[in-house]
Amino acid sequence: MPEQSNQMQTPNHDRWQVRETHIDPAQQFRNETLFAIGNGYIGLRGTHEEGGLSGPSIEGSYLNGFYESEQIHYPETAYGLAKQNQFMLNVPNGKGIACWIDDEQVSFSTGEIRDYERVLDFRTGVLSRRFTWISPRGRAITVHSKRIVCFEHKHVYALQYNISAINFSGQIKLVSTLDGAVRNIEAGDDPRVGSNQSGAGLELIGSEQNQNRCVLTHRTRNSGFALVSAMDHVLQCDAPAKTVMLSGGQKAAIEYRFPLQQGASATLTKFGAYFSSRDYVESDLKKMAAQELNQAVSLGFDTLCTEQENYLTQFWQHADVEIDGDNALQQGIHFNQFHLLQSVGRDGKTNIAAKGVTGEGYEGHYFWDTEIYIFPFFLYNKPDIARKLLDYRYSSLPKARERARQMSHAKGALYPWRTIAGEECSAYYPAGTAQYHINADIAYSIKQYFEATGDVDFMMRAGTEIVMETARIWMGIGCFAANDPDRFCINEVTGPDEYTALVNNNYYTNIMAQMHLHFSADMAALMLQTDPARFAEVAAQIGLDNDEPQQWRRAAQHMLLPYDEKLGIHPQDDSFLSKKIWDFASTPAENYPLLLHYHPLVIYRHQVCKQADVVLALLLQGDRFSLEEKRRDFDYYEKVTTHDSSLSSCIFSIIASEIGYHDKAYNYFMETARLDLDDTHGNTCYGVHTAAMAGTWMSVAYGFAGMRTYQSKLSFTPRLPEKWRHYQFRVHIQGQLLQVRITETDTEYKLVEGTGLTLNHGAQLVTLTNACPRVCVAMSGQKDDHAI
Amino acid sequence: MPEQSNQMQTPNHDRWQVRETHIDPAQQFRNETLFAIGNGYIGLRGTHEEGGLSGPSIEGSYLNGFYESEQIHYPETAYGLAKQNQFMLNVPNGKGIACWIDDEQVSFSTGEIRDYERVLDFRTGVLSRRFTWISPRGRAITVHSKRIVCFEHKHVYALQYNISAINFSGQIKLVSTLDGAVRNIEAGDDPRVGSNQSGAGLELIGSEQNQNRCVLTHRTRNSGFALVSAMDHVLQCDAPAKTVMLSGGQKAAIEYRFPLQQGASATLTKFGAYFSSRDYVESDLKKMAAQELNQAVSLGFDTLCTEQENYLTQFWQHADVEIDGDNALQQGIHFNQFHLLQSVGRDGKTNIAAKGVTGEGYEGHYFWDTEIYIFPFFLYNKPDIARKLLDYRYSSLPKARERARQMSHAKGALYPWRTIAGEECSAYYPAGTAQYHINADIAYSIKQYFEATGDVDFMMRAGTEIVMETARIWMGIGCFAANDPDRFCINEVTGPDEYTALVNNNYYTNIMAQMHLHFSADMAALMLQTDPARFAEVAAQIGLDNDEPQQWRRAAQHMLLPYDEKLGIHPQDDSFLSKKIWDFASTPAENYPLLLHYHPLVIYRHQVCKQADVVLALLLQGDRFSLEEKRRDFDYYEKVTTHDSSLSSCIFSIIASEIGYHDKAYNYFMETARLDLDDTHGNTCYGVHTAAMAGTWMSVAYGFAGMRTYQSKLSFTPRLPEKWRHYQFRVHIQGQLLQVRITETDTEYKLVEGTGLTLNHGAQLVTLTNACPRVCVAMSGQKDDHAI
Repeated sequence: MPEQSNQMQTPNHDRWQVRETHIDPAQQFRNETLFAIGNGYIGLRGTHEEGGLSGPSIEGSYLNGFYESEQIHYPETAYGLAKQNQFMLNVPNGKGIACWIDDEQVSFSTGEIRDYERVLDFRTGVLSRRFTWISPRGRAITVHSKRIVCFEHKHVYALQYNISAINFSGQIKLVSTLDGAVRNIEAGDDPRVGSNQSGAGLELIGSEQNQNRCVLTHRTRNSGFALVSAMDHVLQCDAPAKTVMLSGGQKAAIEYRFPLQQGASATLTKFGAYFSSRDYVESDLKKMAAQELNQAVSLGFDTLCTEQENYLTQFWQHADVEIDGDNALQQGIHFNQFHLLQSVGRDGKTNIAAKGVTGEGYEGHYFWDTEIYIFPFFLYNKPDIARKLLDYRYSSLPKARERARQMSHAKGALYPWRTIAGEECSAYYPAGTAQYHINADIAYSIKQYFEATGDVDFMMRAGTEIVMETARIWMGIGCFAANDPDRFCINEVTGPDEYTALVNNNYYTNIMAQMHLHFSADMAALMLQTDPARFAEVAAQIGLDNDEPQQWRRAAQHMLLPYDEKLGIHPQDDSFLSKKIWDFASTPAENYPLLLHYHPLVIYRHQVCKQADVVLALLLQGDRFSLEEKRRDFDYYEKVTTHDSSLSSCIFSIIASEIGYHDKAYNYFMETARLDLDDTHGNTCYGVHTAAMAGTWMSVAYGFAGMRTYQSKLSFTPRLPEKWRHYQFRVHIQGQLLQVRITETDTEYKLVEGTGLTLNHGAQLVTLTNACPRVCVAMSGQKDDHAI
Repeated sequence: MPEQSNQMQTPNHDRWQVRETHIDPAQQFRNETLFAIGNGYIGLRGTHEEGGLSGPSIEGSYLNGFYESEQIHYPETAYGLAKQNQFMLNVPNGKGIACWIDDEQVSFSTGEIRDYERVLDFRTGVLSRRFTWISPRGRAITVHSKRIVCFEHKHVYALQYNISAINFSGQIKLVSTLDGAVRNIEAGDDPRVGSNQSGAGLELIGSEQNQNRCVLTHRTRNSGFALVSAMDHVLQCDAPAKTVMLSGGQKAAIEYRFPLQQGASATLTKFGAYFSSRDYVESDLKKMAAQELNQAVSLGFDTLCTEQENYLTQFWQHADVEIDGDNALQQGIHFNQFHLLQSVGRDGKTNIAAKGVTGEGYEGHYFWDTEIYIFPFFLYNKPDIARKLLDYRYSSLPKARERARQMSHAKGALYPWRTIAGEECSAYYPAGTAQYHINADIAYSIKQYFEATGDVDFMMRAGTEIVMETARIWMGIGCFAANDPDRFCINEVTGPDEYTALVNNNYYTNIMAQMHLHFSADMAALMLQTDPARFAEVAAQIGLDNDEPQQWRRAAQHMLLPYDEKLGIHPQDDSFLSKKIWDFASTPAENYPLLLHYHPLVIYRHQVCKQADVVLALLLQGDRFSLEEKRRDFDYYEKVTTHDSSLSSCIFSIIASEIGYHDKAYNYFMETARLDLDDTHGNTCYGVHTAAMAGTWMSVAYGFAGMRTYQSKLSFTPRLPEKWRHYQFRVHIQGQLLQVRITETDTEYKLVEGTGLTLNHGAQLVTLTNACPRVCVAMSGQKDDHAI
């Protein structure tokens, strides 16, 4: 496996912050990602107000779900391939503030920087910087800037830029810009970055300036959206300022000129807003932006910061994972949780992209990452957001139906492998559209949601319809084997492991489809029973035949789930075990990830996995396997897995925990926990890895604490990793809030909110009530035993 | 299956001609292909001197092997995918001659055409036209034109344009053009047409005119070739002509003005030549073109025509397949043979494209079609050309080695699935690079060649080296199954059937690889024995280990060749028989070919074949199967085969003959025999189907006459199709020429050239000697029995 040493230089591993203490050109690109801020809608990369150093950089301002589209050109085309790509578009950059002392411009490339510090604080949600710049002529100015993207105001961000004249008096010029001349990065040879080659940006259709405010109106060239980007300003300084409106081409700017006396300071506060016709009627956009800016200006920057902190306080009260014993790790976990919150769409029309709103990797697309990796974090920490993620899928159900027709399925709905607005955007179907398991993944998250929340309303309104429509696809692509009518087979699919493609009876796909088919029949029965009118309505709408649920059960009962007697393991697919095992011994470290060094045919021909596949099934369908089976599968697949996907380590960590491989569990966990902070995959510059971030939470809750919810029953089998003194996390379940605290001596279960809860600690039943909200169970053994 | 009625309107099914008696706009595009002429290097589509009607058309002048290249852009790329496409480029069009009577231009869109006739004659090799044009003002002129591409002069073509003034006297203007402003067609959604989107044509770098001669020099933009296109003229008319040189932009032209009296006629003869730096040093090209034109002018058009006819007379003496009883069929067979001769490269540096030099379908690429479909025709009719086709492969062996390295094979050579100059040009690897059987196909043709000619020199010089280098790839991609070390498996390949992709143990691939590995070991042994010095040289060059031949044998001996006991058939691959059978009953006729109406995943998921796969193995490895096995395989695969590929019907015809399905054999044969003449696949407009054309010959020789060469032994089991009175063909073998004539009463074997030959007629041994060069064997039954 490749070794990288891109470790984030954080001598002080603050548990609640990331901190940068000098400007390092080599880390600029990566740190733009790490210091990105967002609110699930707006995302601003951590570039500097003054502009950065030369070298790789993406200015990066994004709106979740706001996309451009472009035709996909295939050098050799085929019927039904995805026709249009959608990609998250760079929107006008409102971060820019240039500062001049007379004719000298504050810059990282001239003069000298002293006492530089940049901090992103997870509890305040503020990105702040402080540095002193010594100009070439020796004038010293201290800059203190702050930046937030408001959690409480979806469309608003704000910057504060404070300067102090240290050793001079002079004329200051502050130029605040809103720059529409932004482009997405050009994709190179790395398929993980993106494919859009056109690079065409937004088209300017209007520009207005008035007093301290600038408004730019743009239109996307192909997807047809209008976008209003606006900024407003408040300047505080001792002397009266002269304001000049500048504009030219794509750029709007306001220039403030004022004198600054030695020892004095001045502050420019900039409020920004974005509104697009993806969300609202085009003619309202400017008015709405004006209203938001009026409100923001009237609240003021400090109030916005207070709101921000309050929002986060509440978030951390529910979501904080506390780890005592490893500050670097604690920092990593908080960082991950914070970025998840920053990345997730919560309006029911957007989702969470593979890179959140922090970079252009994977083009802002949503994948199964949401349902299988990220959903549990929100489900158990902020279930309202989890519901919104499902609402997003429901909103695109019509497009999934349309895609199913393109794929020649007369019935049902097929969700896209990667998308923004619901259309399939995967331009390489063997590792895209062929991953039919996306349908089961979505059904699985609905099942999880229903079990954890009991939200029948959602199931009646949306959930059951999604589940039934998606289940039907298994009947379309599956079949009772032509040469063995007792086996229900699912052929020609790709499972989670993208180093094996277009196989028959991928184990993960089949066992998840089996769950899906059963669940769909269960939900049909439940709906028929609890709300027959709604059932009749949905059945009529989707043309459900009476006997379909019965067929789903029959297919599920006969589902082929092979087992290799000789090896005692579950084959990843029909042919996996007959393939040659990859020659790991002869593969040099620099040849990882394999996908960048070997033709797909070479990879597909071998037993080699990019990521957890059967091992993921061991987690998601864990009550279907004995511990011994899990151990044998883990042992087998670990040997052939490269973890070239960031989705892999957390799953291996969890199963390693379960089967008692505690050292391995901890090591895999550590790979996940600081994946972006330490840039272990070398591509954090293109955005954070949201799935791996959420995997951290799963590794703690599902892994070390052994949390499971089989048959809707909550259970834990906690262990304390050797290096830790204690850890603690909270779980929202059935409308109640449970705190689990594992120390060296015992596990404490505490009902923080709610009326009563029953759970299992191993085999032991634990009942929490208002009368007795706290139960401590002694640990069976002290810390990990490392004999295994 | 789709029914089409694009039957060529040839009321008189002349056995040696195709004839067009009126201009039909609906057939213009197709007929440009049918009336295309060529000599294996130059190809000129059958467009008119005067320009055609509006509507689809490709002017089309091509040079076999002369290509432009362009980067292949993948919307989602991967390591090792083919990087550069090569495509046959439209070269300057020298066919144009415009004729004016005063200010009226002879045209198919104005005035009136009478007595139109166009004939392509397979025995003279001349395309001739005759028509009378009545101008809008009522002046009648008769045009008689002829066109040849010289078989005896690779670089030369010639046109003769004769006009007669019927009812007027007037001033004539003839403008002969050489037009470099030509573009390749834009590819649409049909992957069979082509992919080049750039449409960039040649770049003009020089233009010279002198007396009756014009020379244009062009350069390709990416592949870097220089091309000289030249033309010269001879005008015969009663009055002195005024000559004007015209030129502008990409076009060179010469204008001849002269008076023509009523009843008189004039003739303009145009000689054209192409020379490119793919073949010769750039600085010599113009001189060479001048020399060729000088020679052509001095020989004169009539002499060129005589040479042409002599060449063809000799060709038909060796190659003619004579069928008595069905003129339409006889025409079809002659047409096919003639076009094969026109299409095949014979310089050892070029090959035969899927569409010959008649159109831009498949971009002028060479495929396995050459070795498996076309090679036998040349091997048994013009073995010198067959050797040239193998020389071509030898010339690109270094590139095949390079490709093998890109595909991570440390040893050996992997031929490209589609190419012009030797580089892999397939932009869709599941139905391209994955077709590893190309290596075995090439080895098979070398084996066939060696067995039929005994040409040891070729084997020592080139054949054995190709065979060994290509055999090594099986050791690279094959393996002894990880879970069964007695089975040698070949995983993750695509067989001939492109409706099933990326499978394990494709039957065709495995049995061909087995043959290949054995043959390679045999040839290594032969070379070591007969020419140890050369063996040492080759072994050193390719780094052959001593034990490699032994490993080849071992792999071949353990090759997995599965058999399904229950069905008594050979499964197409490991998983084929478990898949759902395609629902043919519910598939409307307009949904064929399936590839234009279903996503690849939908097709791959089903038991459905585009073309012969196992059935092709029944032919190529026919001595490995019993007749009963063949019948069961045929019965099974016929039901699931759409014949959407033009490579299919001929193979089904041959096996149907062998197993006694005579009606089917005849019907499949008829689909092949007039595939282009009747445009049964609806895409003849983009070029003829050279593989299917050669399949016609195989259907007669291998099918009806049952010719086989197992273990180098020639045998026949002839039958006479019911509709025929007799048929006859000739076979070159071991330097001798055999004529086989099957009548209602007997089969006559006649040694036309050579000293003696032994063959089998069924079980009966037939010996032909100079003393007794002719043996008649009575037919066992009268004609076909149609009971089956």
